[in-house]
Amino acid sequence: MQSDGTVQVTTQKLPELKEGDVLLKTRYSEVCGTDIHLRHGRLAGVPYPIIPGHVSVGEIADLGGEVHDIDGIPLKKGDAITFLDVAENCHNCYYCLVAKASTRCPHRKVYGITYGIKDGLRGGWSQYIYLPKGVKPLRLPASVDPRRFIAAGCGLPTALHAVERAEVHLGDTVTVQGSGPVGLMAAVLAKLAGAFEVIMVGAPAHRLAIAKEFGVDHTINIEENNPQERLQQIRDLTRGRGSDITIEATGNPVAVKEGLELTRDQGRYVIVGQYTNAGDIAINPHLDINKKHLEIRGSWGSDYSHFDLAVRFMAKYGDKYPFDKIISRIYGMSEIEQALADVEGLKVMKAVIDPHKE
Amino acid sequence: MQSDGTVQVTTQKLPELKEGDVLLKTRYSEVCGTDIHLRHGRLAGVPYPIIPGHVSVGEIADLGGEVHDIDGIPLKKGDAITFLDVAENCHNCYYCLVAKASTRCPHRKVYGITYGIKDGLRGGWSQYIYLPKGVKPLRLPASVDPRRFIAAGCGLPTALHAVERAEVHLGDTVTVQGSGPVGLMAAVLAKLAGAFEVIMVGAPAHRLAIAKEFGVDHTINIEENNPQERLQQIRDLTRGRGSDITIEATGNPVAVKEGLELTRDQGRYVIVGQYTNAGDIAINPHLDINKKHLEIRGSWGSDYSHFDLAVRFMAKYGDKYPFDKIISRIYGMSEIEQALADVEGLKVMKAVIDPHKE
Amino acid sequence: MQSDGTVQVTTQKLPELKEGDVLLKTRYSEVCGTDIHLRHGRLAGVPYPIIPGHVSVGEIADLGGEVHDIDGIPLKKGDAITFLDVAENCHNCYYCLVAKASTRCPHRKVYGITYGIKDGLRGGWSQYIYLPKGVKPLRLPASVDPRRFIAAGCGLPTALHAVERAEVHLGDTVTVQGSGPVGLMAAVLAKLAGAFEVIMVGAPAHRLAIAKEFGVDHTINIEENNPQERLQQIRDLTRGRGSDITIEATGNPVAVKEGLELTRDQGRYVIVGQYTNAGDIAINPHLDINKKHLEIRGSWGSDYSHFDLAVRFMAKYGDKYPFDKIISRIYGMSEIEQALADVEGLKVMKAVIDPHKE
Amino acid sequence: MQSDGTVQVTTQKLPELKEGDVLLKTRYSEVCGTDIHLRHGRLAGVPYPIIPGHVSVGEIADLGGEVHDIDGIPLKKGDAITFLDVAENCHNCYYCLVAKASTRCPHRKVYGITYGIKDGLRGGWSQYIYLPKGVKPLRLPASVDPRRFIAAGCGLPTALHAVERAEVHLGDTVTVQGSGPVGLMAAVLAKLAGAFEVIMVGAPAHRLAIAKEFGVDHTINIEENNPQERLQQIRDLTRGRGSDITIEATGNPVAVKEGLELTRDQGRYVIVGQYTNAGDIAINPHLDINKKHLEIRGSWGSDYSHFDLAVRFMAKYGDKYPFDKIISRIYGMSEIEQALADVEGLKVMKAVIDPHKE
Repeated sequence: MQSDGTVQVTTQKLPELKEGDVLLKTRYSEVCGTDIHLRHGRLAGVPYPIIPGHVSVGEIADLGGEVHDIDGIPLKKGDAITFLDVAENCHNCYYCLVAKASTRCPHRKVYGITYGIKDGLRGGWSQYIYLPKGVKPLRLPASVDPRRFIAAGCGLPTALHAVERAEVHLGDTVTVQGSGPVGLMAAVLAKLAGAFEVIMVGAPAHRLAIAKEFGVDHTINIEENNPQERLQQIRDLTRGRGSDITIEATGNPVAVKEGLELTRDQGRYVIVGQYTNAGDIAINPHLDINKKHLEIRGSWGSDYSHFDLAVRFMAKYGDKYPFDKIISRIYGMSEIEQALADVEGLKVMKAVIDPHKE
Repeated sequence: MQSDGTVQVTTQKLPELKEGDVLLKTRYSEVCGTDIHLRHGRLAGVPYPIIPGHVSVGEIADLGGEVHDIDGIPLKKGDAITFLDVAENCHNCYYCLVAKASTRCPHRKVYGITYGIKDGLRGGWSQYIYLPKGVKPLRLPASVDPRRFIAAGCGLPTALHAVERAEVHLGDTVTVQGSGPVGLMAAVLAKLAGAFEVIMVGAPAHRLAIAKEFGVDHTINIEENNPQERLQQIRDLTRGRGSDITIEATGNPVAVKEGLELTRDQGRYVIVGQYTNAGDIAINPHLDINKKHLEIRGSWGSDYSHFDLAVRFMAKYGDKYPFDKIISRIYGMSEIEQALADVEGLKVMKAVIDPHKE
Repeated sequence: MQSDGTVQVTTQKLPELKEGDVLLKTRYSEVCGTDIHLRHGRLAGVPYPIIPGHVSVGEIADLGGEVHDIDGIPLKKGDAITFLDVAENCHNCYYCLVAKASTRCPHRKVYGITYGIKDGLRGGWSQYIYLPKGVKPLRLPASVDPRRFIAAGCGLPTALHAVERAEVHLGDTVTVQGSGPVGLMAAVLAKLAGAFEVIMVGAPAHRLAIAKEFGVDHTINIEENNPQERLQQIRDLTRGRGSDITIEATGNPVAVKEGLELTRDQGRYVIVGQYTNAGDIAINPHLDINKKHLEIRGSWGSDYSHFDLAVRFMAKYGDKYPFDKIISRIYGMSEIEQALADVEGLKVMKAVIDPHKE
Repeated sequence: MQSDGTVQVTTQKLPELKEGDVLLKTRYSEVCGTDIHLRHGRLAGVPYPIIPGHVSVGEIADLGGEVHDIDGIPLKKGDAITFLDVAENCHNCYYCLVAKASTRCPHRKVYGITYGIKDGLRGGWSQYIYLPKGVKPLRLPASVDPRRFIAAGCGLPTALHAVERAEVHLGDTVTVQGSGPVGLMAAVLAKLAGAFEVIMVGAPAHRLAIAKEFGVDHTINIEENNPQERLQQIRDLTRGRGSDITIEATGNPVAVKEGLELTRDQGRYVIVGQYTNAGDIAINPHLDINKKHLEIRGSWGSDYSHFDLAVRFMAKYGDKYPFDKIISRIYGMSEIEQALADVEGLKVMKAVIDPHKE
């Protein structure tokens, strides 16, 4: 993908593996909302041209000597691997070692986003993916269908981090703003983490219908009401108080103002959807924060612990949810323009790339 | 005080005491920034006319039978008492019993603010103060000079709550925005709570000079620089990262936007100064919150635990800080207009009312 | 019940209701493990003779004027009410107001345990129960079968507190020691709170079989193995590390030593089962705590927030679990000796008392 | 040091430096209580013979190419460096990446303890110390006297971790059991972290006298009273309740039982002194933990964040405390037997080794 958003299929050399390196033969990669942002040049610091695709599944094609997973078990050729540690921490800076703010390590570079094509095969929309020593692949259990894993996609670790930040308590009512992949996964995980009621505020109708099938208790279609009506609906569901926790997963700054109002006094508001700079929003610090004794938490990226949990989640619950329904279509290398257009037009929940398909 | 801000001295009947009631003979009360807001009608739900004065010290003039403090020790006539439990919780609602959001109890009414003159002697700018059963007076140790206690005033419990919300860790750098009574006390308490460096951003110069005498490490005078320069100064003091924690104590919405920028990634921002609706402010949810993985916490009011700690703080540290310097003058009943004008004009840090003085 | 453990049916006068009082006509009460302790005189400070029964359900027989629930909704005759606030906090002491250690309030007295018959109808094994002003009854939704509610019994709020203390994170493996009512509810709630795997260590087999029906993932029957084998089984289930969290609900000090060993390094151990003094146990502070960087939390009693959540839990999930299976029999007033014997002999999971039955 | 406790001076080869390695010329190292344990073979897994000395200060003698500190600033020959990262985490295992239990990484090996002489110059009682790439040296500011830094020694980062675990709140009363180096530093840091009162329980008298000079508020000499009297003294200092937090820093299991009793209901007890297996102790889980609603936390080792803070603490407060008083003597290479004997006999608070001194 070029900086002007054009997409071409190119041929690259396979890397020579050194001690500890891994080469994956890609099985599937995904098209995520971030790829739409990339196409429109909305992210800063992207070294175009790049190979997009930050969450992918593949099998080990080759290894540089003996390589182990974090439990010390050797990896071997043919192992099904999900490649999620897309931004290894440096473990050598203030943010890694002192602040323990793992996703704010300034040395992280993300496959498919902040690695360029000059860095080698560092993106999933490619037939092979290069994982040098230090980038940690996770073994996918045989019970997990790779397509289903890609259906959850990068929304899953992102939402795991957001729900961790949300500190859901047993019995909470959680409102999720946004019905895209991150919002859907946040809703599912908030419920698993103890919420008694999960309310999703989003659109269009077919996404809310899927959310219902994933166990969301109540949905509010923003195409059918205004903010005041939505506030009233949520108050009606919460003995008049607002939700205990609200998780923003929209990308739209306007949602932030509305979300603060939807949350009860001394509630918690998690902002995870604002991954690009979509502008400012006016808030009222007296009414929205101080007087409400509210807590707001940004949630940025995800780290190895979320990837580990993502795999365990799919192994435990992957077949309890209708993940198959959110994959609309598998696109080949010649269909990438179409995949991007379908995601941008909200026609599909999740577009999957198979780089070995024409 | 009337709704148009005029102030008159009136004569009221003393209450008849029932079982458990206490009558205080007022020694001193304070003029706080909230009283300026009251005068200008900036607070909602105030039942004018009112007797202002929410933090006061007095001695027990009379008792309705046997009354005990929370340790079970009987109160007796002549006891020096600080009257801080200005807003007893109902202990009978969702916020008191389930959410444990003590200061968001909807049944709290505050002496000098949301009690009107029709509710009796419920304000400190009065020669006597009525404390019916349930309102808990705190015994002031003999070692604490009542004037010094009033010098700390309601800024002390307010700041105790804010610093509790700030969760200072040993070694943190804490920036305090605002150099009024709340900001000064927040700075002192943040340092006591483990901050290695406390930076105060405020004005005018004489307030910052006092802050230095209270142990603030660095002061930045907002009359002498612009936001960009202030940001640079704080980065220079923090290895380029911004403060670990920032506490807003200004009342100005503009400070909120600036404060978010002054705080480092994964830092914490506490908003305690926005006690009236002073309008909106534009923030950027991507840059200011999400990407920074930031945490923002509103801090509203204070409860009995903060009053208990306020008394213990004064007993332990009251003579370690130059509290005498922040009382500029003690005003009699005929000088209240002057006291209000002096506080509003930032001429004094703290104006004290002696209702038995002419 | 007398101090020698004998039980007699007696006739008491109904109380005269004052403003704010409520009189319940008892529907069901329970026999809990504590009642066995009471019978054997194992609790200190019990003012025998007492009316046992601390968790009960009834309907409002009479009211002293207008009485409201915590949402301000008036109670009325015939309302189905669960009476759980068996130990109202004083809201007037150091533990209530400063330490916020709600269940350590020294003024709490518990219905059926530390209230004696001289205090009136303060126990559930009685046809009527007296709730003076301040004791807060909770309205039972029509959807909740009162028998099912009693089946959950006092184990439910006790376990809610313990699981709150456990701070379960999404994906945790939680081991519960003990398969009685508290252990069963702790297991169910730990799962609802985010545990991916719940392991129960207990006996006899029929209790473990019920636990499986309530969704427990793995059970270990202590009659069939020794501590070393149990440790090995749990390590096998946890990649060799031990459980993230272990909750003790046995009442046996020996379990504490074993539980520390079952928990992984930097794990958390919650002790909720040690409600009577059953003696000492030797631990090794180096191996069991310091070197493991472990955390241990005692969990004592429950407060209004747990009762509120207990009712909401039953309304949301009461029909998702086979509560009916754990009520073996409903006992009349003449069968109380039998009920006590059956509970003590572990013949039944839960014995229910119907005081209007012969 | 051999496994039989004998100590000899030997000659070793200097290592050849590779990219990223650092060679320190040792200035001072310390004799810590752990060295006494090492001498008596009380620690498991020690690969004798070893070069003892885990906290040391030196200057850079040589570098393998360009090496940076965590802020990216290049190190250069002659830099004063404190070498504290004695046990670099692997950043590649479950405990490092998922549990985030930094000091429980099973791959950590500690200079002077679990590295043997076969691993090269990995201990501070040596004229040079080898720091291969990955072991992170910390630059000591010019304002910090290296002798004073060694006076604080490994007790400082150990106590920083323990006080972090203690979560001191402003106004707490903290009791420290033990008056050795860890206890002394824990007391100082608990006060800096917000404790209003710090009580030290220890012996002998000269150590308690030093503690007073370091700002400890109350000392209780265990040679002059029995546990019951000590409990009474602490209750007298805490309105009858016990300390909010107690930190164990004794190494004696008996102290654990006593410490649980000294702590108030819903208080917190941190165990940091049990670094070797000194046997079992009987506790009563009902009275000591469950009924008290107590929290107990083990604290093991320290990580880079504590070392970073240790250096910042010394830079900020090193000259505010009489660190010079706790260094009794500087011992040369021929005096190591004497140094060990003096530390074991509690004759000195801190023995310092200068390996370039005869």
